Amino acid sequence: MSKINVSVDCVIFGFDDIEKKLKVLSIEKKVDPFSKKNKKRTQFAIPGDLIELEEDIDAAASRVLFSLTKLNKLYLKQFKAFGHPRRVQQEKDKEWLENFRSNPDERVITIAYVSIVRMEDYNPEASYFAQDVKWTNIEEIPELAFDHNQIVNEAVDFLRKEINHEVTSELLPRKFTLSQLQELYEIILNEKLDKRNFRKQIMSKGVVEKTNEKQKGVSHKPAELYKFNQQ
Amino acid sequence: MSKINVSVDCVIFGFDDIEKKLKVLSIEKKVDPFSKKNKKRTQFAIPGDLIELEEDIDAAASRVLFSLTKLNKLYLKQFKAFGHPRRVQQEKDKEWLENFRSNPDERVITIAYVSIVRMEDYNPEASYFAQDVKWTNIEEIPELAFDHNQIVNEAVDFLRKEINHEVTSELLPRKFTLSQLQELYEIILNEKLDKRNFRKQIMSKGVVEKTNEKQKGVSHKPAELYKFNQQ
Repeated sequence: MSKINVSVDCVIFGFDDIEKKLKVLSIEKKVDPFSKKNKKRTQFAIPGDLIELEEDIDAAASRVLFSLTKLNKLYLKQFKAFGHPRRVQQEKDKEWLENFRSNPDERVITIAYVSIVRMEDYNPEASYFAQDVKWTNIEEIPELAFDHNQIVNEAVDFLRKEINHEVTSELLPRKFTLSQLQELYEIILNEKLDKRNFRKQIMSKGVVEKTNEKQKGVSHKPAELYKFNQQ
Repeated sequence: MSKINVSVDCVIFGFDDIEKKLKVLSIEKKVDPFSKKNKKRTQFAIPGDLIELEEDIDAAASRVLFSLTKLNKLYLKQFKAFGHPRRVQQEKDKEWLENFRSNPDERVITIAYVSIVRMEDYNPEASYFAQDVKWTNIEEIPELAFDHNQIVNEAVDFLRKEINHEVTSELLPRKFTLSQLQELYEIILNEKLDKRNFRKQIMSKGVVEKTNEKQKGVSHKPAELYKFNQQ
């Protein structure tokens, strides 16, 4: 007998187009809904739960995300399994596990998923064992349950490494300026990019093209609008 | 109770510097070591096995690879978990499972790892439930156990997408010509590359540098030798 509990966890990045920030979605879990003395104690985590015995892992990720946040139809990409034998056996997680799991001492391997959305397009709502959901700047993430801080950190690295036109085309309006595109890269990568090099590299990849339109209603000289081409 | 069997599977790519081919390592499994009538029946698979209850998943990958092939100290990179609920429930796999598993009908989620080595540097040997190991050209892979064909195909895609100087520096001699480097890319990517563009791209990345030495003992005009720089 060496069967193991398997869960899924979802790192949902939100691009905040107003604050120009990259955020991550966390839930606030009730630690003990029945205890009077601990009434206010909560714990932050990324949305995750055990998968069911006959459930596909991608389907489990969608179900669990929906059950805790009401978010639906996101493209969730699997990025890594985390399996340290004692990853759920820290003191900070004990109380929650004892209240919510029938086997609180057992090992759990988790398969982590990542997604990135425009925050303004989605409106998460707490549900099930989440009592709140919130977006946090990625530099200001509090202590999370289990190894979720490590999972979020590795998801940030993954996002930065994988950033490409498929990611950015989800986050920009259909027509955009090259400055908007550069700003988006800078926010995700958290570094300033050289304008000339950036434009040279983007244009050499052949994924964006001119629309022959320009910005309207701006006080400065209107910039040319581009779009992603269909490939 | 929704605990699940978890395994690891290893896709080991071999770069064959003599045949100039990309190969993958498979094992031949005894299907039924005790049956007389089926004495010769075997099944191909990539090296994999269940992880132990208290074992880290990276450690399990190394242990399992060693137990079946005697390969040791490879850098194994986790690339994806495969978890279709019926992935081990095909007819072709039934006999082996019944002979080698105490719970042959149960679901198994597998976490797949990938590595690439110079074939000449390693000498795999069959062990444990493997009765043979062999390198096969990636275009000529036979039917494998479970969903191992899908795992190998996705590993090939992963390798092609991830190819970079870290991969290629493992596969070339310390000093090499740009033609050798280009040939290696062409073999892994399975496509011809334009010489001028290739050189421009490689040089613009700044990962290789001239050694100020040239090839020796060649009948054609000796080419300049390069090395990867230390970063």
